[in-house]
Amino acid sequence: MTEPQAARRFRERIATIAYGGDYNPEQWPREVWREDIRLMSEAGISLVSVGIFGWALVEPRPGDFDFGWFDQVLDNLAEGGVAASVATMTASPPPWLARKFPETLPQRADGTILWPGARQAYCPSSPVYREHALRLVEKLAERYAQHPALALWHIGNEYGCHVRACYCDSSALAFRDWLRERYGDVSELNEAWSTKFWSQRYDDFDEILPPRTAPTFANPAQRLDFARFSSDTMLELLRMEKAVLRRVTPEIPVTTNHVPLARTLDLHAWSSEVDVVGYDSYPDPHDPRAHVLAGLSYDVFRSLRGGQPWLLMEQAPNAVNWRPRNAAKAPGQMRLWSWQAVAQGADGVLFFQWRQSAGGAEKFHSGMVPHAGTDTRTFREVTELGAELAAAGELAGTRPDNDVALVLDWDSWWALELDSHPSELGQVDALLAHYGPLFDAGIGCDVVHPDRDLSGYRLVVVPNLYLLRETTAANLTDHVRRGGHLLVSFFSGIVDENDRVHLGGYPAPLREVLGLRIPEFQPLAEGAGIGVELLGSAARATLWSEKIEPKGASVLGTFTEGALAGHPALTRHAFGDGAAWYLATRPEPEAMRTLIDRVTAEAGVQPVLADLPAGVQATRRGEFFFLLNHNAVEVKVRLPWPAADLLTGAQAAEVTLPPRGVAVLKPVER
Amino acid sequence: MTEPQAARRFRERIATIAYGGDYNPEQWPREVWREDIRLMSEAGISLVSVGIFGWALVEPRPGDFDFGWFDQVLDNLAEGGVAASVATMTASPPPWLARKFPETLPQRADGTILWPGARQAYCPSSPVYREHALRLVEKLAERYAQHPALALWHIGNEYGCHVRACYCDSSALAFRDWLRERYGDVSELNEAWSTKFWSQRYDDFDEILPPRTAPTFANPAQRLDFARFSSDTMLELLRMEKAVLRRVTPEIPVTTNHVPLARTLDLHAWSSEVDVVGYDSYPDPHDPRAHVLAGLSYDVFRSLRGGQPWLLMEQAPNAVNWRPRNAAKAPGQMRLWSWQAVAQGADGVLFFQWRQSAGGAEKFHSGMVPHAGTDTRTFREVTELGAELAAAGELAGTRPDNDVALVLDWDSWWALELDSHPSELGQVDALLAHYGPLFDAGIGCDVVHPDRDLSGYRLVVVPNLYLLRETTAANLTDHVRRGGHLLVSFFSGIVDENDRVHLGGYPAPLREVLGLRIPEFQPLAEGAGIGVELLGSAARATLWSEKIEPKGASVLGTFTEGALAGHPALTRHAFGDGAAWYLATRPEPEAMRTLIDRVTAEAGVQPVLADLPAGVQATRRGEFFFLLNHNAVEVKVRLPWPAADLLTGAQAAEVTLPPRGVAVLKPVER
Amino acid sequence: MTEPQAARRFRERIATIAYGGDYNPEQWPREVWREDIRLMSEAGISLVSVGIFGWALVEPRPGDFDFGWFDQVLDNLAEGGVAASVATMTASPPPWLARKFPETLPQRADGTILWPGARQAYCPSSPVYREHALRLVEKLAERYAQHPALALWHIGNEYGCHVRACYCDSSALAFRDWLRERYGDVSELNEAWSTKFWSQRYDDFDEILPPRTAPTFANPAQRLDFARFSSDTMLELLRMEKAVLRRVTPEIPVTTNHVPLARTLDLHAWSSEVDVVGYDSYPDPHDPRAHVLAGLSYDVFRSLRGGQPWLLMEQAPNAVNWRPRNAAKAPGQMRLWSWQAVAQGADGVLFFQWRQSAGGAEKFHSGMVPHAGTDTRTFREVTELGAELAAAGELAGTRPDNDVALVLDWDSWWALELDSHPSELGQVDALLAHYGPLFDAGIGCDVVHPDRDLSGYRLVVVPNLYLLRETTAANLTDHVRRGGHLLVSFFSGIVDENDRVHLGGYPAPLREVLGLRIPEFQPLAEGAGIGVELLGSAARATLWSEKIEPKGASVLGTFTEGALAGHPALTRHAFGDGAAWYLATRPEPEAMRTLIDRVTAEAGVQPVLADLPAGVQATRRGEFFFLLNHNAVEVKVRLPWPAADLLTGAQAAEVTLPPRGVAVLKPVER
Repeated sequence: MTEPQAARRFRERIATIAYGGDYNPEQWPREVWREDIRLMSEAGISLVSVGIFGWALVEPRPGDFDFGWFDQVLDNLAEGGVAASVATMTASPPPWLARKFPETLPQRADGTILWPGARQAYCPSSPVYREHALRLVEKLAERYAQHPALALWHIGNEYGCHVRACYCDSSALAFRDWLRERYGDVSELNEAWSTKFWSQRYDDFDEILPPRTAPTFANPAQRLDFARFSSDTMLELLRMEKAVLRRVTPEIPVTTNHVPLARTLDLHAWSSEVDVVGYDSYPDPHDPRAHVLAGLSYDVFRSLRGGQPWLLMEQAPNAVNWRPRNAAKAPGQMRLWSWQAVAQGADGVLFFQWRQSAGGAEKFHSGMVPHAGTDTRTFREVTELGAELAAAGELAGTRPDNDVALVLDWDSWWALELDSHPSELGQVDALLAHYGPLFDAGIGCDVVHPDRDLSGYRLVVVPNLYLLRETTAANLTDHVRRGGHLLVSFFSGIVDENDRVHLGGYPAPLREVLGLRIPEFQPLAEGAGIGVELLGSAARATLWSEKIEPKGASVLGTFTEGALAGHPALTRHAFGDGAAWYLATRPEPEAMRTLIDRVTAEAGVQPVLADLPAGVQATRRGEFFFLLNHNAVEVKVRLPWPAADLLTGAQAAEVTLPPRGVAVLKPVER
Repeated sequence: MTEPQAARRFRERIATIAYGGDYNPEQWPREVWREDIRLMSEAGISLVSVGIFGWALVEPRPGDFDFGWFDQVLDNLAEGGVAASVATMTASPPPWLARKFPETLPQRADGTILWPGARQAYCPSSPVYREHALRLVEKLAERYAQHPALALWHIGNEYGCHVRACYCDSSALAFRDWLRERYGDVSELNEAWSTKFWSQRYDDFDEILPPRTAPTFANPAQRLDFARFSSDTMLELLRMEKAVLRRVTPEIPVTTNHVPLARTLDLHAWSSEVDVVGYDSYPDPHDPRAHVLAGLSYDVFRSLRGGQPWLLMEQAPNAVNWRPRNAAKAPGQMRLWSWQAVAQGADGVLFFQWRQSAGGAEKFHSGMVPHAGTDTRTFREVTELGAELAAAGELAGTRPDNDVALVLDWDSWWALELDSHPSELGQVDALLAHYGPLFDAGIGCDVVHPDRDLSGYRLVVVPNLYLLRETTAANLTDHVRRGGHLLVSFFSGIVDENDRVHLGGYPAPLREVLGLRIPEFQPLAEGAGIGVELLGSAARATLWSEKIEPKGASVLGTFTEGALAGHPALTRHAFGDGAAWYLATRPEPEAMRTLIDRVTAEAGVQPVLADLPAGVQATRRGEFFFLLNHNAVEVKVRLPWPAADLLTGAQAAEVTLPPRGVAVLKPVER
Repeated sequence: MTEPQAARRFRERIATIAYGGDYNPEQWPREVWREDIRLMSEAGISLVSVGIFGWALVEPRPGDFDFGWFDQVLDNLAEGGVAASVATMTASPPPWLARKFPETLPQRADGTILWPGARQAYCPSSPVYREHALRLVEKLAERYAQHPALALWHIGNEYGCHVRACYCDSSALAFRDWLRERYGDVSELNEAWSTKFWSQRYDDFDEILPPRTAPTFANPAQRLDFARFSSDTMLELLRMEKAVLRRVTPEIPVTTNHVPLARTLDLHAWSSEVDVVGYDSYPDPHDPRAHVLAGLSYDVFRSLRGGQPWLLMEQAPNAVNWRPRNAAKAPGQMRLWSWQAVAQGADGVLFFQWRQSAGGAEKFHSGMVPHAGTDTRTFREVTELGAELAAAGELAGTRPDNDVALVLDWDSWWALELDSHPSELGQVDALLAHYGPLFDAGIGCDVVHPDRDLSGYRLVVVPNLYLLRETTAANLTDHVRRGGHLLVSFFSGIVDENDRVHLGGYPAPLREVLGLRIPEFQPLAEGAGIGVELLGSAARATLWSEKIEPKGASVLGTFTEGALAGHPALTRHAFGDGAAWYLATRPEPEAMRTLIDRVTAEAGVQPVLADLPAGVQATRRGEFFFLLNHNAVEVKVRLPWPAADLLTGAQAAEVTLPPRGVAVLKPVER
């Protein structure tokens, strides 16, 4: 995937790691605006997102536009030397839209209307919403095309965050059109949806509805297609807005910001539509492994455009406000987690939001300028980080280079988490179970679509690829045949793109490469465990077991309890020039680590740095090595070579990292 | 209850224990159909249910019928020598019905519409649905009246499984008609419903609604009548279809299949409408006591028609797919549980479904021919069982003969589980608390309506008969007076058929026979226990306590803790020629067993076989004794007489049962 | 607050502690009515509430009135010497109202209609409901104005108990009118609601809706105003009915009865509208601290009208029926808890209800005459208590005099429990955490609005006053300046009346008096604890921590764990002539007791009686001291002076209280 011209221009304009946040001055009196620019300068701000919730102010009545205040905001920024990511303002329509056109309101599967009063209260298929949104985007584009502050277009905002799908009658019409497009003839749809079951045969597309609340499990293929449709529909909104922007301002890059690792949108389809990927990250400081989940997300989002620099578009300077109990970040934790994003490929660190709101639903979400003002730990940490990042221009544009690919496919995610399955399984849990030990082992990985070219990777890890197209199976098989290594965990390769089972013994399309056949699943009870012996060590596992019949694979682990005692739990199949592993349960983390160590060693995958202390993350971007101490205590790290720390200038072969400390190292050439 | 002619003819046609499953060939290409018949022969299949979800295929458009494919299915079966239980196909209307007539869709109490996309999406009171359903039934009956495969009509399918009741406006109209029929005058309804409370008096039947979501507890008598109405309404559907079938095919028996022991339908009213009782049984292999709950269900369903052979119409060959985590059956467990049904009176063992679906909402429900094909444990076990059952023709038509009756009355069940009660109590829990120790003691029991003739029983057990008509009280009292034994547990005899309290001290209509009076209840807190001394032993109890004032009864157990310390917890009243026991709490299982042992001993009730090892179930049908080893280990059972095993031909006075093993014994006459 | 003339007249008419209950004879045949009057005399009944659910019977059809039966009820009471609290009967409209005017039905936030079948099924803003209700009230007032039984008007019943708010279109219209009244111009509303956030700006009042279900957190100021509107709307109902009653019967006092301590109604606004405060109290006998929560409620309701006698309008003679598991009251517990109400200022003890219903949703709610009749513990205890209260005339009209005020402000309660906060906090929990140790220490307290004159109190306790007007802050500050003591717990003083944060460091308006500044909160995780040292002792705390920067305050406690280890957890600020304490976490109860002991000691607050045994409550009304033994064992209490027991006539300086015993003592003058 080539980096777009517009993205490169944007990168060159910012020149270092971009730093800033959402800037919503409309919430504040004019006298505060001047202070904002002054404080931004103090904090080293280079980029802010503006206008995200501006629609009701720029268009207070239908068709009656008032851009004066926004002109001023952009002028101030330009004057202060701060670049603007200008929102298209369509994420939250004004109350008048719902009053005049109540049919624009979204509906839940059970028919509940989602009313105004919060945000995102629109049906993404509504022609009325679209018409009003595009008129606004055009006005904005035309008005600000030449504005010196304009550096980036921020299209929409957190698509699908609160309204993952709409089930209203407008959505039903759009869904039918989408299906007509996909299937052409209703008989094709009947085949794909297995409608001969439960007397669901459709005689006409017009009989089809969104999967609204039904007496029991709705048709899974209908639900799967509705998930696809919902993602596509929101992507269509982005495309429509982008088309306007491209027409008026062809030189300005576009982005949108995505919410934390979520099922709603097929980001592989989305990523090709933006010039720069934007991500909003909100790890929970109450969770001691939050940085691992964050790390997974960063690898996902960096991989979306093949490792091109991405923007951490939102994070919290301190606590958020939307969990039941919202932890503060410990001293140094915001800095650490910001550097983690950079260490994993981000070229920007932005916050929600610049100035903490005094009113509204997010007033207890921390801001860079807190309620208590600038004489606060939060603002001090913000300012210190700004200075550090401003001096880190060398990092901008560098990229990591990983040998391991973790597979993620939204199609499969959607299908996996449908109901009426052998067991309730979660895609993120499955990813984390495999990502965690890689992270702990200091091994960098990309998170990729399974149909892409895998030849750059030594090891491909498939945590749980329930839905598997034949083409995907061929791609994975080829990878092994050509000498690659493959680790597949249970309940992969089960169904095709229409959620129809690959018959003949699971996982039929992968049986050849894995050298085995599975006649039946044996999921474990909630909370139950099972004994296994893996690679010679006893361990516990949970969640799943199943019967493996090896057809060429060697057995390297067995179940030691229950009806499957003595049967294989882990196999390895030498195939072509490579090897394919298969894991039939979910071992505890220590055992997963042992397995990952073995598989990566075989594949010749090396950690970024060997022998790291526990809790220390190491990553590499180009010639720079990052060390991130996620512990609350000091640690020492011996380096294989003397290096200079970009942040301190110090040069040594041993680094002492304070609690939550960071080092950005460049080996000293001798 | 006499066995209907049609049922006898059906039994004679099958000649042995029927064996088969739901057969849905429409899901498969024609080339598979031939293989199906071949495999059915291999597996010993004698009976399959066909067409259950056929409506959308035989009537793809309103009034446009296409029976060709179904003709072929039946022809194939006839040719293969497999009898067909032909569904009336009305369980799941095609999508066009909802599109043309949205008013046929059912609604929940809160107004949520239940849309198409799954199955059973119809309002049972809808005249439009009924008209379309009956037209279809007539077509089917006329077309297949003379078909050689037709052995049984399968009316509807799992009535009330997903839509227990409908609250829509059509249902409101029907409910009013039902009430007019029941009460004649609205003043009678006002009296029955106690509407002077909370200002609920109705001036006209037209003011009455289903018990839709209300600000707080809805009128309990209204809810009770609505439960009756809902059961009656679905029964009316069955009756209407049956009337068509009887007219066209008077010789063909009818059945319907019921879901696992559920509150929805008053099966005592339903059972007289079918020629053969059908039951779908899905015990959870993750539950170590699943066979006890299954055993209770089998006794319920066998007792519905007074012990006449019934059909296990559905069970899973291996795992199901609708629990959060779906256990596989252990090796031998499917066979054991199949034989359990036979041991408890079934003359047929059928599965859902013949061939495991590749698509749709039940594709992970196991099938007799699994996804992995015939080279699987599942298909091998299916085939082996088929052979065993085919050779067990002697068993068909035999019946058990039990001395103990457990009382179950759906009217009381509905009323018991209404809200705003002294404590949340569950009918099935109450049944199991009493059934479990009987099961463990090897004592067979019937589960009967309390108004029936009880003279054949030595002991009648009343776990929790909250709603008690005066006539029922008289029946129970007479039972004791005439020398029978009676065990009644707490919160029985509290209200009349309109959920109005029998005044004067609980349980007023049973006070005479029990020899006591209860002035007040003292339910225990969630999770709390209370000490009791029962029959000389200390034990713990939960859930309930209450103050008993003996009026003739002897005290055989007392509370030892709390405000009731020293007060009676268990009494026995010698009354007439019998004895009536009363239990005022829920003792732990061991203490319940002690109590059951004492009460059955007094009543002269004998176990089927004495001194059985724990976990071994013994039942009797006619001259045959069944031994079922529910343990995962081998056990030896000494018999009081040498016997021949129908399954092995072996003859001895000691039987060794392998893990999950079964023996069908006939004592050797000497 | 002056006691109204009408209230005084009522008090003089009853002459002692009023005793009685809800009387609903319409549920019973006429022959029971005579027995009722006889039994009331036996039980010492002086006051009953009648007609609460009478509407459907007095107006069986729209406009067709039938008062005959109710005439008879009142005549019987008058003849029997029982005073009547006559309900206006508007709490539960008859079914015909909803049938004729479905728009009168209330709706939930998600659009669910609340149908008839229970009670309170009306939209409080419905003009149709109001018209019908007022017509009825006028009829009643005119008919019974001169009836000798009429002693009190009981307006409505438990306003807001089941329908806390209505979100229908009528409510939307009324809400807009209420907002127009409050804000005048929509721009004022926009400012108050912070609508510049999330693009919520309104251009017109007609765009505004109730806070119906929205995609995510609805605007908190909108929700706060809707809570105010909902309380005001129900108060408007009471005012409208009262206006009719005052016009026709200006001499008759009015009351209404409120449900247990609930968020729904701003009782400070309501209390000035009634002549006598009525409260329904339902402590849970399964809860060993139920009497403490009840005690808090009694102090709240007594304080509503500045300590004027109030009526315990409902309590249960024994068990209730609406919890999942409903405990019976232990022997003596009903008497103890009745006396507790009197000890805390009640001049009446009434029950729901006189005769336990045989049918309907509350039939398992105990009655004074139980299902089992008069030969029951319940009726005996009722009768004994009646005799005691009848002889306690000296107590009537006396009042306590407390030195401690606990602050409660419904505005703040509503705002506190909105979502999207730093942590989920509950107002009642916060009150109880502070009230409990005061209760245990034997210190009487009032529960007051924070804007009232506080000069009578030595100590003011502010458990959690999240919403704080500047005027309130000034009032609290003045209290300390003038020598009062103040204890404020965390998350107080955060927002203004529009839920907008007081900027500049929390809690800005209280920073001066507390001598500190809080830059950030650090809520604890669910279930997590934190170590603290308070006043020299180590303890555990939960729920919350935060960073305090002392600005004059002394540190008397610190956190000993986590990111705040060593930082202040408890401070004391000498300010003006008084002192202000601040507590930054929720210590365990023992530590809270230590703190309360220290703060009260400093403030010169004395317990009612010193050195009481644990579990013994002491209160004072005028010259009478009450001792209430909440233990299940006997205790002895030494008095500082010899005293006479009003209940036994005994005279001594030591009192032996049996389990759950009560003494009402008058010191003997020497």
